[in-house]
Formats: sequence, C-alpha cells, structure tokens
Amino acid sequence: METATATLARRASRLNATMPIGHAAEAISFESGHAFPGILPDMTEAAAVALNQYRAETLQYAPRPGLAELRAWIAEFMQADGIAQVGPDDVLVVNGAKHGLDLICRALLDEGDCIAVTAPTYFTAVPIFRSFGVQFLEIPQDAQGMDVSKLEAQLNDLRSHGKPLPKFVYDVPDFHNPSGVTMSLERRRNLIALCARNNIFIVEDSPYRSVRFEGELPPPLKALDGGNTVLMLGTFSKLLAPGLRIGWVSGPRELLARMVQLKSDGGTCPLTQRIILEFCKAGNLPSHIARVRETYRAQRDRMIAALRRELPQCSFSVPGGGYYLWITLPAGLDGDALAHAAARDGVNIIAGSRFFAGASGEQHRNTIRVAYSYATQEQIDRGVALLAGALRDLQS
Amino acid sequence: METATATLARRASRLNATMPIGHAAEAISFESGHAFPGILPDMTEAAAVALNQYRAETLQYAPRPGLAELRAWIAEFMQADGIAQVGPDDVLVVNGAKHGLDLICRALLDEGDCIAVTAPTYFTAVPIFRSFGVQFLEIPQDAQGMDVSKLEAQLNDLRSHGKPLPKFVYDVPDFHNPSGVTMSLERRRNLIALCARNNIFIVEDSPYRSVRFEGELPPPLKALDGGNTVLMLGTFSKLLAPGLRIGWVSGPRELLARMVQLKSDGGTCPLTQRIILEFCKAGNLPSHIARVRETYRAQRDRMIAALRRELPQCSFSVPGGGYYLWITLPAGLDGDALAHAAARDGVNIIAGSRFFAGASGEQHRNTIRVAYSYATQEQIDRGVALLAGALRDLQS
Repeated sequence: METATATLARRASRLNATMPIGHAAEAISFESGHAFPGILPDMTEAAAVALNQYRAETLQYAPRPGLAELRAWIAEFMQADGIAQVGPDDVLVVNGAKHGLDLICRALLDEGDCIAVTAPTYFTAVPIFRSFGVQFLEIPQDAQGMDVSKLEAQLNDLRSHGKPLPKFVYDVPDFHNPSGVTMSLERRRNLIALCARNNIFIVEDSPYRSVRFEGELPPPLKALDGGNTVLMLGTFSKLLAPGLRIGWVSGPRELLARMVQLKSDGGTCPLTQRIILEFCKAGNLPSHIARVRETYRAQRDRMIAALRRELPQCSFSVPGGGYYLWITLPAGLDGDALAHAAARDGVNIIAGSRFFAGASGEQHRNTIRVAYSYATQEQIDRGVALLAGALRDLQS
Repeated sequence: METATATLARRASRLNATMPIGHAAEAISFESGHAFPGILPDMTEAAAVALNQYRAETLQYAPRPGLAELRAWIAEFMQADGIAQVGPDDVLVVNGAKHGLDLICRALLDEGDCIAVTAPTYFTAVPIFRSFGVQFLEIPQDAQGMDVSKLEAQLNDLRSHGKPLPKFVYDVPDFHNPSGVTMSLERRRNLIALCARNNIFIVEDSPYRSVRFEGELPPPLKALDGGNTVLMLGTFSKLLAPGLRIGWVSGPRELLARMVQLKSDGGTCPLTQRIILEFCKAGNLPSHIARVRETYRAQRDRMIAALRRELPQCSFSVPGGGYYLWITLPAGLDGDALAHAAARDGVNIIAGSRFFAGASGEQHRNTIRVAYSYATQEQIDRGVALLAGALRDLQS
C-alpha cells in the first residue's frame, strides 16, 4: 500500500536528469539553444488582428487538433518541402515539438520498453524518454549521420536473444543536435527500409531544417517514406520564435487520434496559433527566415574563426546549418572538467557526456557542445578566448 | 515482443471516453463550458506591450515554473482569497488546469492505483484519470457537497480488506461541475482532517470561484489546510478567457519540483503569461470579473425562468455561481435518450450519466447538465422550449 508521498519519493531518482537551468547574469552563454534576441520578429500587428478580428476564436476553447487553418498552412509548408502525401488531417498541432515527443511516448511506450537514439543525442529529449522508464539502444553516428548498419546489427542481436525490438528510433537528421551532422540520402533510405521491415517507427525531429546556411539538404525522411513509418516533429521555435510554444506532429492518423485524446491541455493556445498564422499570411516568413540564416551564418563563422585562432588543438566539423558546434578536445581532456572551469571563468558550455542516453558517453568524455545562436559576435570572441584560457589551465 | 502498433491497439479501449466534440452549426449549445463570446476581454493593449517592451522575454524560451512576476501575482491573488501561506515558490504555472491535473497524475499515479472522485464529477477529468489506468472510488454528494462520512466509511472498508487507499481525492468544491453544489465549511474541515490523517492528497479544482453571483463562499480548502494535504488548481480560463491556456498548481514544493521536471513543454508560453500580467497590472481584472458575474447571473436567471415555465416537472437546485444547472428529470426518464432527442431538435445538452466515473451513473440516469454560459438570452428561451418539446416526445 503505497501513498502518494511514497510514489513521489520512489520516482525522484528517475527524474534526476541534469539540465542547464540558467547561469550567472554576467556569464557568456554558449550553452543554450535560445534564439538570438536581435532577430525575434515584430508580431504586434499579427497579435492585434488575432485579438480583434478573431477574438471569438483566439480567446475561446480551441479544437484539440489545432486550428484548421494552421493545420492546412503546416501541410502546405511540408508539401513545399517535398512531403507530398501530407494533408491537414495528417497534422496535429502541439505545444512545441517536445510536447509532441511526450505525446508520442505516452501513446506508444510502456515502462521497460526500448527505444533507439543516436550517440550523442538531443539531451533535452533524454529526460522525457526516461520519465517513461525506457531502456536505450545507442547507435553511433559518423559524418553521414546515424550508422544504420550498426542499428541493423543491434536489431539482429536483440532478435537472436529473443529480446524486444525498440518501439521507435529517435533522430535529428538535419543539422543534428549536438553533432551538427546531416544524414545522407542513402542512410535515410536505408533507415526507412530497415525500420519499415521491422515494424519500428522513426521519430524525425527536425527543428533546424530552415536554419540552413549553404548547400542543399536531402529530403526529409517523411518525404522518402512510402508507408507510415516516419512520425515527423515540426516547430515554430526555430522558424519564428521559441516563446510561441507551437509545434506539430505528422504521422499515421490512428496515432494522431490517440494523441489528441491524450492532449489533456484543452487545446493548444488558439491565440498564439492565430498570431503565427496572421504573421505568415501577411507574407513575413520568407524575409524572417532569410534574416535568421544570415544572422546565424555570421555567428557560426565568427565562432569558427575564433576557435581556429584560440583553440587550434581542438577539432570540429563545420555544420551547414543549425545552432551548434560539436568539438573534440585533445585526447585525455575531460569535457565536464572544462565546462566546470569555463563556467568559473564566465562562459557556459555543455560537456559532451551530457548528450549520451546510455553508457557510450564514457568513450566521448573529450567532447563539448558550444552554441553560437544566442551570444553576440563580441561575446563569441570573448567567450572563446575565455574557453581557451580555461583549457590551458586544465592542461597546465 | 509488442510493436508500437500493437501498443496503440491495446490502449485504444482505455482512451475510448466519449466527449462532446462539436455540434451542428445551427444547434443551440447548452452543453459546453465555453465562455460567452460577448464578454471576452479586449487584450490588444496588453499584447502590444508584451510583444514590444517584453519581446526578449515573450518570444524566448521561458523559465519552466512560469514567469516569476506571474507566479508572484498568482500568490497575491491566492493570499487575497485567504490562502495566507502561499508565496511565489508555491505556485507552478501550467497550460491550463487540466495540464496541471495531468502533471499531478504523472507525478503520483501508477497503473491500477485508486483515486476518489465525487459522483457526479467533472467529466473532462475522467479520461485524463483513465489514461493512467486508475480505479475510481465514487463518493456521493448532497447539498453540502461531498459526503465525507461516506468517504471515511469507504476508506475503512478498503483498509479492513487490506486494499490500497486512494492516492488523492479530486473535487470541485465551489459551484461544482456538474452539480452546482458548494461544499460547506464543516465538510471542508472534515475532508481535510480525514485526508491528512490518512496521508491522502486532496486535489482542489476551483475554476468557478470568481464566477459568484450572490452570497459568500467558504474559504478554499487550501486556506483551511494546516499542512500540505491540498493541491490547488487555478486557471485564467474562467477568470479571463479560456483561449489563453494558462493555469496554475499550488502544492508541496517537492511535488511542484517533480512536476516541473515532467513539464516537457519547454516552458508554458511566456507570451500569453505576459499578456495576462499586463492586462491585470493595468487594473482591468476587477471590472472584467464584475462583467462576468453580471452576464452569467443574468443568463442563469433567464434559464431558471425558462425551465420553471417550460419544464415544471423537472427539479434542480439554484447554484450561486458557475456555469451549470444539474437537472433531475421525472423518474423513469432517461437523460441519454433526452440528450439524443434534444440534439435532433436542435439543442445540445449532456446526459447526467456521462458525469460518473464508475457504475454509480446507472442510478442517476434521469439527470442532465445544461450550461447557461455560452448561449444568448434568446437562445436560452428557444433552447429550453426545444428541450421541453423533446421531453414531451419522450413521454408520449
């Protein structure tokens, strides 16, 4: 007979994931995926329309799957990205992509289930997965993205031992967080074929797809999916602004129907949905995306230059988009120790070890993730110099 | 070895709760807890301030527990209602009260756990509870609210059979949905003492407390709680507008800390939080609440007059606030049959049977709930006449 208080105590350990929760006011922030304050758009006009012309919609309870007009807009946005088969009924509006991920977990997972993630993986997703009591299958990455042959080998291994296969594979195929890697077209095709054969869903989380600096991206996994293997997560956080807390999920309709039932939130906020719609309908999105790309490209380039100047002993690949650089420190150096020393010196970074859902982080202790999204160009220069100082201290 | 698809299929039945999901465009709506469109406030000014002066806050990721300023405002609001012990750190901002309820369930419940609810109870909460696989203990109500002596008898019965006690008791003590009953002060004290003795939380859900037409309300359960027995849910849905999707939970800090970790939503929308704050800081709330009370009081009175005129064979108690009338039909009549006939005739109501989490609904089949919140005065007259016609058809 367990009381509520006892349940709370028992569950405390499962939820004990460490996450960055702010920093000293004066510190330079290379750790967060926050947007650069200077490119947050002016949405006043859209809000005025939403709160006047659409008041009866925006201040009232909303349809749980999202505003019909926004679902149609999102479907068109996805179609323009090559996902021809998606219509408004294949889109569920949620409170940001993480809410979508949470609903997917609630619909599909039981305690003790297994899921597959890349190593490293998006570290904010890990505590969400952990709160469902899952086991992780860690799949290594290389310059082409997730190593699908290693995933296949692990699936075969599980099967030969009579163990359950993962319920889904979670990945960020475009400008991966934290590694910056984009999955090649061939790997995308192989992953879909493998998962379709084994009746395993793929959760494609692609917040950075529009934050592209150069070159072309392969089509989304969802565009290459002839069946219903891929669940795609989208968000306005990187497209427009994180504070809006509006994202979407596209997947099999029977799964979306369950997720709607699990949306206990009384419908995602219709006011912010309408503000987004009016902003986009007024034609503001293309120029905003152009500004976003230009801004973050300049910040990436500034950081790369600073790193090459100040930290030539470290290596990294140059990502074609996104917010992050994944840096390998000289062998024997510890990312956690560096993060600690750097924070003391006034610059916040995240140790690479935090981005591993399982034990494989131990082999990657000499890694860190730095974000170039939030800091100013001047802070980037100063922060990298501080980081180099902290590294020298560790080596001395 | 269960695939994700199989999990989905297995869970379908658990989620099969029936809920009102819209109605013919021309139908008169007595079924929804929607706000009256005519009293949705003008928040344009507050939004302009939020999106200009506070842009770096409102369009950026927000602190997960909510904006500090809003938590302080809510704490003061609760203090003004007699809950002296609550400070900003005792308040967690969530995406509406239902989101708060969902987080409480996630923090406290395991599949097969038991919770206590009134009979009848708030029917939108039932599928949330069910999605956690709980068992229900149904506690009858009378004119004083939940029958606490019956709850005590059931607890004793469970204990004597070695069965687990409920993890929490869920109730709407003020202008109960659907019954309209307000729990007496004595019952409130007895409930708190009983639950404190047995280490059972009380979840106090009080959306209608500010929608009071006459008389005084007893203090909130939370104000009477000398310990940490009561978790209080609050919302701006009835205070301001449902579309804002902002609510709060107040409870023990260690529980709020777990709920923050379970808030996978990347922080409740800072834009709507700030719009609410600016609206309230500008002094708009008292006059808005006065308009809400006046409007709904008039709509209640209009509906009572229509019911007495058209349906003298039905009985109901007059609620001192809230949105709903709970109507007992003549013995032998079936609320579901009446709801069906009424919908056919162009007026939507909800059968009383839908408001019972367990088997006790069978003894209350001759009940219905009608909402006077959403319809116009003219629609109230016409809708009650249509309802009376449908009842006559059933009786003939």
